[in-house]
Amino acid sequence: MKIDVCTSPALYSFYKKEGDIVIVVDIFRATTTICAAFTNGAGSIIPVANIEEAKRYKSKGYLVGAERNTQKCDFADFGNSPFEYKASIVDGKDIVFTTTNGTHAIESAQGCKELYIGAFSNMHNLVEKCAKKTERIVVICSGWNNRINLEDTLFAGAFVEEMKLRTMVEADSDALLIALNLWISAKENPLQFVKVSEHYRRLQLHGFEDEAEYCLTQNTTTVVPYYDIKNKLLRV
Amino acid sequence: MKIDVCTSPALYSFYKKEGDIVIVVDIFRATTTICAAFTNGAGSIIPVANIEEAKRYKSKGYLVGAERNTQKCDFADFGNSPFEYKASIVDGKDIVFTTTNGTHAIESAQGCKELYIGAFSNMHNLVEKCAKKTERIVVICSGWNNRINLEDTLFAGAFVEEMKLRTMVEADSDALLIALNLWISAKENPLQFVKVSEHYRRLQLHGFEDEAEYCLTQNTTTVVPYYDIKNKLLRV
Repeated sequence: MKIDVCTSPALYSFYKKEGDIVIVVDIFRATTTICAAFTNGAGSIIPVANIEEAKRYKSKGYLVGAERNTQKCDFADFGNSPFEYKASIVDGKDIVFTTTNGTHAIESAQGCKELYIGAFSNMHNLVEKCAKKTERIVVICSGWNNRINLEDTLFAGAFVEEMKLRTMVEADSDALLIALNLWISAKENPLQFVKVSEHYRRLQLHGFEDEAEYCLTQNTTTVVPYYDIKNKLLRV
Repeated sequence: MKIDVCTSPALYSFYKKEGDIVIVVDIFRATTTICAAFTNGAGSIIPVANIEEAKRYKSKGYLVGAERNTQKCDFADFGNSPFEYKASIVDGKDIVFTTTNGTHAIESAQGCKELYIGAFSNMHNLVEKCAKKTERIVVICSGWNNRINLEDTLFAGAFVEEMKLRTMVEADSDALLIALNLWISAKENPLQFVKVSEHYRRLQLHGFEDEAEYCLTQNTTTVVPYYDIKNKLLRV
């Protein structure tokens, strides 16, 4: 099986191939939060790239999650914390969602054959699903404003390692090798490893350290959200 | 001192800041070859981004180095091998140079305050020069068709490690941390480490393994080529 790793949404056009299956990852925190919302019963999540579109949905009565630069937008019901999307609020609901980086990465992958949401929290079931595929799989790291980041690259490395335990992986991409090498250095204590990262320090500044720990914990959920291309929304 | 690492020319707009000093690196092989040509007495190197421009210079009598996809272009005097630019041919000459990735990276950095050419071959003197600067330094990895690569990222990590031995470095960029981590994994035997890389395999296919070894060897030259912004050419 061929796997590749694209370390920034801005690079995807250089990695893209017809028929790719794409895994979008934004560990801190969009894709972890999407998994948490579905775990708590959300019916669908409509990713939108800009605030104006999110506001239009809000005025129509939708629940809206909106974050920019680590903080919840004033008009929204939720920010980008996986802890906010509680079953008592989201169960059975369609939620509109826009974040600094994660929803941008989903947009950049439009045109792929299938798109799944990846996080440490759903690693096991994501890998189980991907190991059955025959298509090339590309992990797109959301990064931070198109800059590459530590935590998404770590996820890519962890994903590749797990895939290699289940199937033959052609590890012929330099970006994949870099991600795998990074994960091998970090895996004994990923939380400690990312404490020097740009985003961890941003989370810390806002008192979100507990979330960082949750976002790096593997297999806390079984959901594997996918993008329903026709209806432009995420489902499980 | 602030240092950042930009792992692909296509990402530079997201890393760029006013007043940056830029180090352009294309280990396999453009920046190693540029250093070799100056070591052997070249007067200047005129980097051009496309083949047509290189052909126009050739018709005016210039010596031309031109490579695409690892191979020398038919019309050119040299390809992209550091071994071709011998003193008997290049001493005192102005050379026009276009390669798949390296000259593209130089173009992408236009607008920076100063631009230097980095390679393992000139590491010591490059670091000596950079350690005296007060501006932010950004290493731009040329990559391969805007995809990130192992050898340029390794150089970035090695450069950061050397800089840290000489001055206080603010290591607050995730890309820098990834590059440094990669170099620490590889530095005992960089040649062995890159043997799995995409570009090493391309070089191997064309019988250029000796060049790969040379390109990864530190401190074989003292030149630190810089880009003369006014005249759009490289000098020492």
